[in-house]
Amino acid sequence: MKRALGLGEIMIQMNPTEKGALRFQTLYERHVAGSEANTITQMQRLGIECSFLTAVGADEFGKVVLASLRSEGIDTSGVVIDEKNPTAVYFVQRGYPVPDKTMVFYYRKGSAASNFGPQHLKEEYFKGLDLFLVSGITPALSDSCKEASLKAVELAKKHSAKVAFDTNIRINLLKTKENAMKTLEPFIRKADILFTGMGDLAMLFESDFDRSRESLRKMAEQARLLVFKKGSGGIEAIVDGKRYSMPSYKVPVVDELGAGDACDGAFLASYLLGKPVEEALRYANVAGAITVSLKGDIEPLPDWKAMETFLASQEAGEKRLLR
Amino acid sequence: MKRALGLGEIMIQMNPTEKGALRFQTLYERHVAGSEANTITQMQRLGIECSFLTAVGADEFGKVVLASLRSEGIDTSGVVIDEKNPTAVYFVQRGYPVPDKTMVFYYRKGSAASNFGPQHLKEEYFKGLDLFLVSGITPALSDSCKEASLKAVELAKKHSAKVAFDTNIRINLLKTKENAMKTLEPFIRKADILFTGMGDLAMLFESDFDRSRESLRKMAEQARLLVFKKGSGGIEAIVDGKRYSMPSYKVPVVDELGAGDACDGAFLASYLLGKPVEEALRYANVAGAITVSLKGDIEPLPDWKAMETFLASQEAGEKRLLR
Amino acid sequence: MKRALGLGEIMIQMNPTEKGALRFQTLYERHVAGSEANTITQMQRLGIECSFLTAVGADEFGKVVLASLRSEGIDTSGVVIDEKNPTAVYFVQRGYPVPDKTMVFYYRKGSAASNFGPQHLKEEYFKGLDLFLVSGITPALSDSCKEASLKAVELAKKHSAKVAFDTNIRINLLKTKENAMKTLEPFIRKADILFTGMGDLAMLFESDFDRSRESLRKMAEQARLLVFKKGSGGIEAIVDGKRYSMPSYKVPVVDELGAGDACDGAFLASYLLGKPVEEALRYANVAGAITVSLKGDIEPLPDWKAMETFLASQEAGEKRLLR
Amino acid sequence: MKRALGLGEIMIQMNPTEKGALRFQTLYERHVAGSEANTITQMQRLGIECSFLTAVGADEFGKVVLASLRSEGIDTSGVVIDEKNPTAVYFVQRGYPVPDKTMVFYYRKGSAASNFGPQHLKEEYFKGLDLFLVSGITPALSDSCKEASLKAVELAKKHSAKVAFDTNIRINLLKTKENAMKTLEPFIRKADILFTGMGDLAMLFESDFDRSRESLRKMAEQARLLVFKKGSGGIEAIVDGKRYSMPSYKVPVVDELGAGDACDGAFLASYLLGKPVEEALRYANVAGAITVSLKGDIEPLPDWKAMETFLASQEAGEKRLLR
Amino acid sequence: MKRALGLGEIMIQMNPTEKGALRFQTLYERHVAGSEANTITQMQRLGIECSFLTAVGADEFGKVVLASLRSEGIDTSGVVIDEKNPTAVYFVQRGYPVPDKTMVFYYRKGSAASNFGPQHLKEEYFKGLDLFLVSGITPALSDSCKEASLKAVELAKKHSAKVAFDTNIRINLLKTKENAMKTLEPFIRKADILFTGMGDLAMLFESDFDRSRESLRKMAEQARLLVFKKGSGGIEAIVDGKRYSMPSYKVPVVDELGAGDACDGAFLASYLLGKPVEEALRYANVAGAITVSLKGDIEPLPDWKAMETFLASQEAGEKRLLR
Amino acid sequence: MKRALGLGEIMIQMNPTEKGALRFQTLYERHVAGSEANTITQMQRLGIECSFLTAVGADEFGKVVLASLRSEGIDTSGVVIDEKNPTAVYFVQRGYPVPDKTMVFYYRKGSAASNFGPQHLKEEYFKGLDLFLVSGITPALSDSCKEASLKAVELAKKHSAKVAFDTNIRINLLKTKENAMKTLEPFIRKADILFTGMGDLAMLFESDFDRSRESLRKMAEQARLLVFKKGSGGIEAIVDGKRYSMPSYKVPVVDELGAGDACDGAFLASYLLGKPVEEALRYANVAGAITVSLKGDIEPLPDWKAMETFLASQEAGEKRLLR
Repeated sequence: MKRALGLGEIMIQMNPTEKGALRFQTLYERHVAGSEANTITQMQRLGIECSFLTAVGADEFGKVVLASLRSEGIDTSGVVIDEKNPTAVYFVQRGYPVPDKTMVFYYRKGSAASNFGPQHLKEEYFKGLDLFLVSGITPALSDSCKEASLKAVELAKKHSAKVAFDTNIRINLLKTKENAMKTLEPFIRKADILFTGMGDLAMLFESDFDRSRESLRKMAEQARLLVFKKGSGGIEAIVDGKRYSMPSYKVPVVDELGAGDACDGAFLASYLLGKPVEEALRYANVAGAITVSLKGDIEPLPDWKAMETFLASQEAGEKRLLR
Repeated sequence: MKRALGLGEIMIQMNPTEKGALRFQTLYERHVAGSEANTITQMQRLGIECSFLTAVGADEFGKVVLASLRSEGIDTSGVVIDEKNPTAVYFVQRGYPVPDKTMVFYYRKGSAASNFGPQHLKEEYFKGLDLFLVSGITPALSDSCKEASLKAVELAKKHSAKVAFDTNIRINLLKTKENAMKTLEPFIRKADILFTGMGDLAMLFESDFDRSRESLRKMAEQARLLVFKKGSGGIEAIVDGKRYSMPSYKVPVVDELGAGDACDGAFLASYLLGKPVEEALRYANVAGAITVSLKGDIEPLPDWKAMETFLASQEAGEKRLLR
Repeated sequence: MKRALGLGEIMIQMNPTEKGALRFQTLYERHVAGSEANTITQMQRLGIECSFLTAVGADEFGKVVLASLRSEGIDTSGVVIDEKNPTAVYFVQRGYPVPDKTMVFYYRKGSAASNFGPQHLKEEYFKGLDLFLVSGITPALSDSCKEASLKAVELAKKHSAKVAFDTNIRINLLKTKENAMKTLEPFIRKADILFTGMGDLAMLFESDFDRSRESLRKMAEQARLLVFKKGSGGIEAIVDGKRYSMPSYKVPVVDELGAGDACDGAFLASYLLGKPVEEALRYANVAGAITVSLKGDIEPLPDWKAMETFLASQEAGEKRLLR
Repeated sequence: MKRALGLGEIMIQMNPTEKGALRFQTLYERHVAGSEANTITQMQRLGIECSFLTAVGADEFGKVVLASLRSEGIDTSGVVIDEKNPTAVYFVQRGYPVPDKTMVFYYRKGSAASNFGPQHLKEEYFKGLDLFLVSGITPALSDSCKEASLKAVELAKKHSAKVAFDTNIRINLLKTKENAMKTLEPFIRKADILFTGMGDLAMLFESDFDRSRESLRKMAEQARLLVFKKGSGGIEAIVDGKRYSMPSYKVPVVDELGAGDACDGAFLASYLLGKPVEEALRYANVAGAITVSLKGDIEPLPDWKAMETFLASQEAGEKRLLR
Repeated sequence: MKRALGLGEIMIQMNPTEKGALRFQTLYERHVAGSEANTITQMQRLGIECSFLTAVGADEFGKVVLASLRSEGIDTSGVVIDEKNPTAVYFVQRGYPVPDKTMVFYYRKGSAASNFGPQHLKEEYFKGLDLFLVSGITPALSDSCKEASLKAVELAKKHSAKVAFDTNIRINLLKTKENAMKTLEPFIRKADILFTGMGDLAMLFESDFDRSRESLRKMAEQARLLVFKKGSGGIEAIVDGKRYSMPSYKVPVVDELGAGDACDGAFLASYLLGKPVEEALRYANVAGAITVSLKGDIEPLPDWKAMETFLASQEAGEKRLLR
Repeated sequence: MKRALGLGEIMIQMNPTEKGALRFQTLYERHVAGSEANTITQMQRLGIECSFLTAVGADEFGKVVLASLRSEGIDTSGVVIDEKNPTAVYFVQRGYPVPDKTMVFYYRKGSAASNFGPQHLKEEYFKGLDLFLVSGITPALSDSCKEASLKAVELAKKHSAKVAFDTNIRINLLKTKENAMKTLEPFIRKADILFTGMGDLAMLFESDFDRSRESLRKMAEQARLLVFKKGSGGIEAIVDGKRYSMPSYKVPVVDELGAGDACDGAFLASYLLGKPVEEALRYANVAGAITVSLKGDIEPLPDWKAMETFLASQEAGEKRLLR
């Protein structure tokens, strides 16, 4: 069985039951989310044996995070329980002021996960590993997180695991373009597999897609695989210099949060299981489509059977109920 | 007043408040549904005097089923209260893994209704009756249900009531194509009015619509009226050999369950009240359109006034609020 | 700071959590709404210093109405607490029998607000005022409301405030076309700024838009500004005889109630703040678009920042999440 | 089978999901209630064949009322559909400002039911009837309701049905003590079976229970049966001059509304079925106890089996789960 | 670390959001429960390393059961996924007709777990085990479950694990007293630790507690530890012939389901960790008290810290808020 | 009219809809609360003209806080909008592990309010003021808050307003007993009216009530009025050296949060309005009793009419419904 390891912050997401300005929302559903954990959960559901590194508070929400990972069968032996700092929380505002767009309000400063550091990494986690995943969010959380991320990349390389990196820029953590580049560049340079999106590319380089893609390719000197997520514009990959692209599926957009992570996870699982690039891109698209069509980041992540059912329905345009 | 009688199972439907994989759904709404009962309720709302034959458990959910029929004014004097077996239950999964599609999980094996048998039929139910309705689900439930269905068809014929039959194939009850054909053929041969859909035709005969329609026509030797429900492709009828067809209305699809039953009910009520075929098809389309635009099978079924309001709105493209 | 004053009834709106025939709805959300109060709240959120005149019952729902106005910072010193008559209530039926259309059921006969009369008007409310707003609903409520509305128009004129009037015909209050014209004509003749919609124009004059617009222009002898709200057909204005028009934004329609009021409010606030007509129309369109995309009349009303975010998103077609 | 007929108003009850001042309640459950209908429903559940006389609006809430009666099997052929006036609505405030007490806010003025009159009574409703029930609420609604109530009493007497009357004073309808006495006296004088409570007795006569009971006995010249409901103080009856009394069961009080009606219904059903007075009082107590322990007026009303289960549990103090 | 293994059925529990007759309940919460799994989860939360044996359907509800166990860190490698039979479901009716009592309606006939059999047991599960737990429910489910339970007891004995057994009679599975005794006797005779309750003792032997306790002691020839759960009457143990007893804590009873299982789990964990009997009984009482004070079987199960907080609060009668 | 001013933090309270361990709670209601704001709101509802000083984030939750104050008519012109720091949030866990006890989890570090400082105080706020209120929470938030609190006390004294202080110890902010004393002593020494509770007294001095009360009296050298809140043990006051005490009302405890603040507010309003001490204590008790019987801190706070209704009900033991 293939093994993957992720590193990142997992937060409690408070999502109002209704769309609209948060100030009028009085009822909230509690979810759990975190970009790297979303991706790792997607991989675990697709048959990869995953483990995850993070820190959570010694509080009730920390228990929620652990239960979420464990309920999927993800190994949590590397999760740090921080007695001093809390598990982070964020609030989501959906559909206001722009219909179908989401805004988020974070309570993550000084969180347990942002106090995760290189001292929490044990070399044993990396032995026998096939893939290590981190995104641009983790090094942006704090200096200790950045150091831990860099050390983890080194340990992965040392043990011959591939390094997957998603640029995932959070501008309210990174503050400026310059800091974004400074923080992410070391990871872009070392990644074996690199994911990015249109907005991130524009932020790092320039708004012209062709030129910024080229700039990224040059910087990503070790990356054999580059994946460009273009939202409703589909998905594109460059593998050993060859370009592949695929349009996205047309589905009703309910909640765009987490779709990119689902994409990454389905692509990486397909890749680890040795599927051809075209197939990996198709499954990435399917996972993204299913995820945008439902609320929550983690709940919609499909297993293989769910993806095959989706594909069968798409391909046949078949209209019968399944009962 | 025209009189109609239906026979079939009525179940408790547990419908989660949110779309998505059932394993993440923690809150469920309880509804009541059953294909033949949906159709009969539609007819009752359109002014036909209806009664219904079924069995329910001597439990709380049996009382829900009875209350649902009685609240519409449907005569329930023929409903059997089964002291030993429970009222069936099923769970609905909406929008996962295919957006806008529904999957169902049944707890109906050994239910009260599947123990309904010919011994529960009294000839008096059929006296003065204008129409008897059953669908392919009922004979698929159990041997006793199949015998009861056949005996009911005979009693209806004996008392000069028209027999309406909807093929309504449930493959998880019938298991194979062969068994489906074996179970349904006697009803197709004896029906005076026959309803079917694209999926059912393909299952019984072949996937080419024109050829399977022809095969059905030949088998349905006593049917003066055949109605083909084609989902978003509209509705088609063959009456005394003449074809009529009508496109469907464009409405947002919220829950496709029950739309076909609404169609049947509005067509049959129109027919019993002597409306021309074109009108009956139009009302069938309207009832289906209103039903797919709302959750629940029974709740959306329109009365005449609701259908006229819908038609007025469609025809005028009128945009004003009604207040 | 510019000052505006509104007059009208504010009601408790009971809005079921689900779409469909009201008889099957068992759970309702309580909202607060009233056409003129919606418009005034929109203006207050856009920086106009507003006050409001109405009467509420000496009951819990009257306290809800007062709290709603006060929470926005609207001056309620002119609100009458009526010890004898209740605050009005209405029930909303959404999506049945016509998808995306709303029906309302009022319990407003003999309400506190319909007992508001000229004796409750103090001249001091009109001193230093820039704009007075009333709509066709208020004079339709009762004779005393009609007299109060007329007296308020006179007091506004006396103190050099502009009079804004929206025809806002409620046929279940006005009963006949003739009574509608008789009731509204004095206000149309005296308004400085006049708002109307397609349905109202057809009711007052004739269904041909060009001709009825011309008829209105002739009757509205003092109106320098006429605004025609055409729903999804956009918005049109005639200012000192010159025509301006603008298409509406394409957004998903969730609840059309209150959109016209948001339009009026954004237009009037823009006008009072001295923005050019084209800009006022654009903001009217934005406020309407945001309001139809969310439930509730008052909750979605945007402030300037929300409107700029909406416009930025529209203009750039920008797809990134804001986080 | 014994037959009973009731007359009264049935309203839509809007009951917030939480306790507290109504102004802070934003979510409401819709129930159906009406004193006489509660009592009649209790009787129907206990095997009496019941019918009901009332008027409802030609609106969605009128359909709710009809469905509620019909779902129980109660004959609604005498219910008037009023095209002009609405079904009444009321709002409930629970637990504020007094814990465990309930306040109500009515929207019933000019309702369909208050326009019910003697012209709606057909003599055929009273043929073969065993019992006619009305309470002090109905004559308090309007003059036409009072006339209809008196005429119904006469028709009942003419056809040898017993007349049951509950004083059920609603002071916000009757306004004064004097009017209460004037309105209720004719019914007290003619009743064969009379129900009253401590508060009503104090309002009609004086606060001393012994003396006011004596006053009532004198006035109730035709009453063979008088039942005094004393809340947590138990229940008392005088039958042909002989006194019986029974303490109430100790249960947690969740919602006291409807408990008195349940009492009346269980007593009357027991009486009609020929049970001895002691038993009738015990069942009245049980029905009241079950009803105060749950929300809603109609939902908790027990059938015989439920009452026997309650009694078994009370008598044995038995603690095991039933599974 | 001490290791424990449980065997039993885990079901989906549908629990209405409100108390009252199930027929009026329209909203349900989904929980997970099963007597032996409740006990094992309680032990896992108290630091015992647990695994569980059961079968679940290859359906969404089977995934819920697995996720529930895994989220606690319980080893599920012995759980069978049954492709043919469904995960069982049951519905709960709270507070009707007896306040504070619960009734249950099962849909468990032919479930996946009832098809669990001796062929699913691997000897390796029992190596190094300290305790094996089963209750009287499992052998009552089916012949194959009975055989599996007996074989598991033998395997436990072979590998020197203690056998804990709770009589846990489900009369609707066992049908008669005779069958109850016949089914449970082999387990009573072989148990090392035996739990029972008042109702079970009366069912197996006679209603007199002293005599039936004596009868049980004689039959339980290998049991060094017998625990008698007496509900609000406290808890009693006989250890090597010596009697210990302790009164229960006074807490508000919200949901009595699962309290006995919590008791068992806290007692067993204390025992495995070497605590004295008095302490084990105290913690059993605490776990039971916390569990009856909250809804759900699994959610309330306390960890050591929660139990210490409860005890501190009880002992000090301390009233301050913890913040 | 009497005028009062409060200073303190107002937070968003996320309160799960169900009791139990927070990790299992998935649905939360949003409330608003803050000790001093609760007290000030209670005073405003009792006819005192209040204003409030605090800082909120320039975020949606800051708007909620402002709307809450404004909806009561409280003057918010001194509220600072902080562009950099967020409005604080806290989560409530009710009934676990101790039934009827509440635990809270704060996200308030670095909040807007904890950045409030002396620079935000304008002397004009204190002119014409009758009473200034602050509690021990505010100086515990940060150094700047402590300085602002001290400066506000001085300004109040300068303008002859009474200073009311509630010790209100939050040990998770103050960390140690020593720091608690050091932080609160200056306020205790300067207060004119002093409120405290049993837990606070024990923390500051010693657990013996009589001795610690005496210690407090000595330290509170300027306090003419000392109020001791003893929870279910009632309330006690020392006024100019004379002791008054009153037992508490017996009501069901639903949510103890905010009851002490309600007490303070009702006492202070009574005092400002010149009522005798006994009356002030009685109203303090009533306000506390109503507040513990309902969820939320602010919602239950009674006005005079509500308190009179409560008292009437208590005094008469009157049992009739109010309708």
